[in-house]
Amino acid sequence: MNIEKIRNEFPFLDAEKTGKKVIYLDSAATSQKPLSVINAQADYYKYSNANPHRGSHYLSWKATEVYEKTREKIRNFINANRPEEIIYTRNATESLNLLAYSYASENLKEGDEILISILEHHANLVPWQRVAKEKGAVLKYVYLNEDFSLDYNQLRDKITNKTKIVAITASSNVTGEMTDVKKITKLAHEVGAISIVDACQLAAHKAIDVKDIDCDFLAFSGHKMYAPLGIGILFGKYSLLENLKPYNLGGDMIEYVYEQESTFAKPAQRFEAGTQDVGGVVGLSAAIDFINEIGIDNIYEHENELVRYAYDLIKDIDNIKIFFPEKRNTGSVLSFAFCDIHPHDIASILDMNGIAVRSGHHCAMPLHTYLGVSSTCRASFAIYNTKEEVEYFAKELKNVRKVMGL
Amino acid sequence: MNIEKIRNEFPFLDAEKTGKKVIYLDSAATSQKPLSVINAQADYYKYSNANPHRGSHYLSWKATEVYEKTREKIRNFINANRPEEIIYTRNATESLNLLAYSYASENLKEGDEILISILEHHANLVPWQRVAKEKGAVLKYVYLNEDFSLDYNQLRDKITNKTKIVAITASSNVTGEMTDVKKITKLAHEVGAISIVDACQLAAHKAIDVKDIDCDFLAFSGHKMYAPLGIGILFGKYSLLENLKPYNLGGDMIEYVYEQESTFAKPAQRFEAGTQDVGGVVGLSAAIDFINEIGIDNIYEHENELVRYAYDLIKDIDNIKIFFPEKRNTGSVLSFAFCDIHPHDIASILDMNGIAVRSGHHCAMPLHTYLGVSSTCRASFAIYNTKEEVEYFAKELKNVRKVMGL
Repeated sequence: MNIEKIRNEFPFLDAEKTGKKVIYLDSAATSQKPLSVINAQADYYKYSNANPHRGSHYLSWKATEVYEKTREKIRNFINANRPEEIIYTRNATESLNLLAYSYASENLKEGDEILISILEHHANLVPWQRVAKEKGAVLKYVYLNEDFSLDYNQLRDKITNKTKIVAITASSNVTGEMTDVKKITKLAHEVGAISIVDACQLAAHKAIDVKDIDCDFLAFSGHKMYAPLGIGILFGKYSLLENLKPYNLGGDMIEYVYEQESTFAKPAQRFEAGTQDVGGVVGLSAAIDFINEIGIDNIYEHENELVRYAYDLIKDIDNIKIFFPEKRNTGSVLSFAFCDIHPHDIASILDMNGIAVRSGHHCAMPLHTYLGVSSTCRASFAIYNTKEEVEYFAKELKNVRKVMGL
Repeated sequence: MNIEKIRNEFPFLDAEKTGKKVIYLDSAATSQKPLSVINAQADYYKYSNANPHRGSHYLSWKATEVYEKTREKIRNFINANRPEEIIYTRNATESLNLLAYSYASENLKEGDEILISILEHHANLVPWQRVAKEKGAVLKYVYLNEDFSLDYNQLRDKITNKTKIVAITASSNVTGEMTDVKKITKLAHEVGAISIVDACQLAAHKAIDVKDIDCDFLAFSGHKMYAPLGIGILFGKYSLLENLKPYNLGGDMIEYVYEQESTFAKPAQRFEAGTQDVGGVVGLSAAIDFINEIGIDNIYEHENELVRYAYDLIKDIDNIKIFFPEKRNTGSVLSFAFCDIHPHDIASILDMNGIAVRSGHHCAMPLHTYLGVSSTCRASFAIYNTKEEVEYFAKELKNVRKVMGL
């Protein structure tokens, strides 16, 4: 694997054009995009743009073809059974809100339990709060072991006959832990609960096999996997989708509309209201090609090497606390804090030296409260990062303490 | 105004690259995009891409800046009071669903009335069906005069003290009528109802002034106004937005998240959950520049000339029926049917000759039922169309009858 060759595909590394040399360690927020993705989207708008499905003319057919072919490509990417199980959404947030509205609010009753983990991103947490409140259901949390790893014993105990939904991240955007979603799904199914997987931080880093996991629903965003912003995916087992009420209502998702009532199309169309983001779909298609050409196992290996290397280089810095369950499978994020420097100061000082890390609660406030910090700094890695960048980051992080006079 | 110069900005007119010479008369479904829009979006991904708001690094600031500056540009484009009144959505469909969920389901009670017109697109119809059913409210329709124009006498009669929401299109995507949304809003306000305007078919064609209209909410999509797919707008008066519950829940729209409850950010952020489509926002910004450079009044004049010219050229074809209220202000769409040829056949034959029109119900099934047809053909015009194209279209439409042996 030639990282330099891969880096040449990313325009943001052209410091002159970007306006600054950037060592981008914020891919968990959104990844940068290779030229192949940017060009595919631009070419679509140049030569193939139309509203899909709705037309009987040349451009509309072209748009429909790429839209549906990409659905099949995504089906293959996550090993789903049927293309109809792949729903285009705006982002994983919309995918999860759709489930809370269309599945949970229809199927939960008072006293039922939803089980999530303290690792969850707000997108896989706040929608469950709302539906729990609405239905009188109980929202329960699985917490962590001392080493910040998910406590599977507790998970096992908390899945009971009352549990109807288990919604857990496949990879934390803070600790980086890649959870065992196959095991979690099995436990959920044993009590008749459904299993929902938030795969946002997994899709660009490790192969997803929904048949093997056997999860009922799975959500991810394109923009964290080298695709454009504004396009996300919801996978659902067809037997469940078939009985799911629609979320957004409008064009293209109906069967018949009368003045006072309507009937709706079959999945996936039922969940795709209004004009869809075909440009985003085309970009997502190119992003999957990009990942497949490198090989997702190679991506994982490279990133894992970087994150472990970074961990080793920074773990002994004075007063640092790293929220990293090193004994578990981990993704490519590393979150840390100093007891004597505010994370925003760290990020600002690193930024002055061209290093882009994120500081804040990373849309995981309950986790931060649980960890006893209001915010952390997070470095996250992708295929375009190098060992040299990791070394520079570690060096500059050490330097932050000096800059702060510590 | 130099139309040839403007046409040079649209890559889809390069027949060699597109694969076929296309006379694109389907802009009401989605407009084509000028190079300035395509390049702005691509350049964003190349040199400025990051997740906005969430970061304290260079690229994140760049992304945040363009995201918020565009909000101000849109505020100015529709003459809203404050940038916080401009909410980014996925498309107008989401904007209207948000209102049905966040406003209507909170404010309607049994027996209340929602008034829409028979002209409405499914996006401004099916969400009201659902909320009416849910709340025991009544969904009422205003119908048309003999000449397919909106019946304002009926509208006046149907707005009563029971009316709580009046949601009407500013321009029909089938008849093309530009309705008097200012008058409609005044009538709504007289009985204490709110006024919602679907401006999807207006935004690219005529200036919008929400202060002058005085509407409470207004929705439109970027992709019909030269911007990329996947980005839409919801305008709302701040005093109403302030009290509106959020629609999608997740990242970036919260204030505090605790394990069992959350508080939410102020508008507009409250309604922008998850990572936003900054690339689409950048494209929308360039699209507004494109429109402003030509001048929206010039666009209207050009399109109006084309649609009236087309009407004159085709209105006497044997057996044609044109659903065009010629005495009213109209947009740039022309829908028609023959009693002896199926609209899909018309569209297919025109397509063979390089003319892209749309056939079907145009996501307005109740209107088609009301008009006594199951589908129509629709030609719709934009700034890149010419009188020569209109003449060719009229000639080929006449020819369709010969091809069909009529």
